[in-house]
Amino acid sequence: MLQPPPAQPGMSEDEIDTPALIIDLDAFEYNLDTMAAFCAESGVKLRAHAKTHKSPVIALLQMARGAVGQCVQKVAEAEALAWGGVPDILVSNQVVGMQKLARLVALSGIARVAVCVDDPFQVAQAEAAAEAGRTRLSVLVEIDAGGGRCGVAPGPEAVALARRIAESKHLTFGGIQAYHGGAQHMRTPPERERAIAFASDGARRTVEQLRQAGLDCPIVGGAGTGTFGLEAASGVFTELQAGSYCFMDADYARNLDENGRHFATFRHSLFVLATVMSAARPGVAVVDAGLKALATDSGLPEIWGHPDYVYVGASDEHGKLHIPSESEAPKLGEKLRLVPGHCDPTVDRYDWYVGVRAGRVESLWPVAARGGMA
Amino acid sequence: MLQPPPAQPGMSEDEIDTPALIIDLDAFEYNLDTMAAFCAESGVKLRAHAKTHKSPVIALLQMARGAVGQCVQKVAEAEALAWGGVPDILVSNQVVGMQKLARLVALSGIARVAVCVDDPFQVAQAEAAAEAGRTRLSVLVEIDAGGGRCGVAPGPEAVALARRIAESKHLTFGGIQAYHGGAQHMRTPPERERAIAFASDGARRTVEQLRQAGLDCPIVGGAGTGTFGLEAASGVFTELQAGSYCFMDADYARNLDENGRHFATFRHSLFVLATVMSAARPGVAVVDAGLKALATDSGLPEIWGHPDYVYVGASDEHGKLHIPSESEAPKLGEKLRLVPGHCDPTVDRYDWYVGVRAGRVESLWPVAARGGMA
Repeated sequence: MLQPPPAQPGMSEDEIDTPALIIDLDAFEYNLDTMAAFCAESGVKLRAHAKTHKSPVIALLQMARGAVGQCVQKVAEAEALAWGGVPDILVSNQVVGMQKLARLVALSGIARVAVCVDDPFQVAQAEAAAEAGRTRLSVLVEIDAGGGRCGVAPGPEAVALARRIAESKHLTFGGIQAYHGGAQHMRTPPERERAIAFASDGARRTVEQLRQAGLDCPIVGGAGTGTFGLEAASGVFTELQAGSYCFMDADYARNLDENGRHFATFRHSLFVLATVMSAARPGVAVVDAGLKALATDSGLPEIWGHPDYVYVGASDEHGKLHIPSESEAPKLGEKLRLVPGHCDPTVDRYDWYVGVRAGRVESLWPVAARGGMA
Repeated sequence: MLQPPPAQPGMSEDEIDTPALIIDLDAFEYNLDTMAAFCAESGVKLRAHAKTHKSPVIALLQMARGAVGQCVQKVAEAEALAWGGVPDILVSNQVVGMQKLARLVALSGIARVAVCVDDPFQVAQAEAAAEAGRTRLSVLVEIDAGGGRCGVAPGPEAVALARRIAESKHLTFGGIQAYHGGAQHMRTPPERERAIAFASDGARRTVEQLRQAGLDCPIVGGAGTGTFGLEAASGVFTELQAGSYCFMDADYARNLDENGRHFATFRHSLFVLATVMSAARPGVAVVDAGLKALATDSGLPEIWGHPDYVYVGASDEHGKLHIPSESEAPKLGEKLRLVPGHCDPTVDRYDWYVGVRAGRVESLWPVAARGGMA
């Protein structure tokens, strides 16, 4: 069930078996360096989101450049990171169920772990798990930053929940979580500015009311690849949780910057390498990367270096490309790099990253938390 | 990277950790029995498609009920089945690349294997692989049954390719592949009838022209869960390749039968079990099954037993449900069965099937070919 790697170090990119998840290591390192420089300059910490990469190798590369820790979205991701040597992990999400919470608490012997809540029931479960594990668990209150999904209302409701945490002898109040997911993919700067102004106002109000209630707020966390500059400038957020910045994807590249140009702060470093497996009719090429090889929830992939080729349809194991009659058609057996529409769920389909530099395979990193269902 | 199973035999369904892929074993066996009875009556063979289930356990249950073998879509699936004891496997797809073909040919010591082609280049590669592996490989010609994706045109082009195969001393001409994927999800019987009449005409014409050329056509394969009755009645198809029938999904259930009712020949047997992890605002419940836990390409999931709940949005690890004000809201921590929109790519996200009967966990089957990328 664990698949063998599709390549070996030293191979040329063209020898990688397909479909394969490849990282252009130069572009990837450029992205890590760019975000690290931004954080160093802005003075806001980076707690990169590992739901994107699911890899302790990548987490440690981010931390070597100054990230203070990692976010994860579930316990299986926290386990993969902690076991891989990541020392500081925030589950930026609710964890419900005593089995999962016991696993999370068990990690506290090897890493700092924290979790979010938006209901007293979750606080009670976290408390029981921490008590059973004879440890003290850090718990953050998630506020609804405008997404209307998880999180209590900013202000008094958040303060009440924080007080409930702070009063427990098995828990520590760790701060607030104020992530606005929907804002990341708003296309224009004014839309994103309005959304993050709303999120920042809620966070600021909550921090002030916590202070009035005698509660210090060590972490104010949020932000993603689409908006991190806004949270950094807000003066209230202390930690940025961007994840996709290390890879980019076709959907993030559709965001516009202040000059109306496509967002290009980061480079595309993640690709699905695919082979043309059928070309039986003019104008059509079929690649071996379909619904099982890449996520299509945020649009179909683009073909790297071939803006004239259009990926028009995905089925289980096929991607159908339209090749304009004036273009040179790809040959049967030719390999193409696809830029996934959405990086996170694409990564989650693979067991291995194949790191490529200057046309050669350099590294094979396991997608350690792939499919970690709980 | 291989995840531990989310349950143990004997547990109640409510104790299964989530998200988990569960099979209602009674419904599943009903589906296997129903298709077996249909094939016994119609006299057409079943070669069930394992791209749906990726499991030698399920393959052998289908064969115990009369299926003559299995279809797969790629070499990694063929390996998982052959190693699991499945004796007869057709890759109902093109395989391009000598690495992959060498692996396929290597299986011929333990199973009958066959592969499809739609180009002389693929024939030449298959021939070279068979020669290198000192075996004879069965090769089928795929014709375009109307989908406009893979396959040569029915008639002379197919005959020319078949002749090329038959003339090779390392290959055997195995027949024709005439699957119309798009027809499976056409909603009304007249649409499906027209599509499969077209596919059947092309197959019939090709078989006749092959016979005139002195070539016997052992297999005429095609059909899926949406149309198998039509191919069975055509008089030309010898093998049905339905896969989804064992599980069903929300999208197949939207097909209509002759009476204008939703397609109900098979029962929903596959579910994603999810937990309500946040319920911070009235009218909203958030479950722990989002884009990484289920495929959304053919629509969002439905909530089993709760037609009033609407799954309105999926993000990486969250599913947002709308709960009407007049409905009883699910409680935080409550577990819900979701019916995936599309079964095949949903299964591919999981390492384990949890088989459930009468509310208890009975079996844990590995999704043996999960993510088999090549």
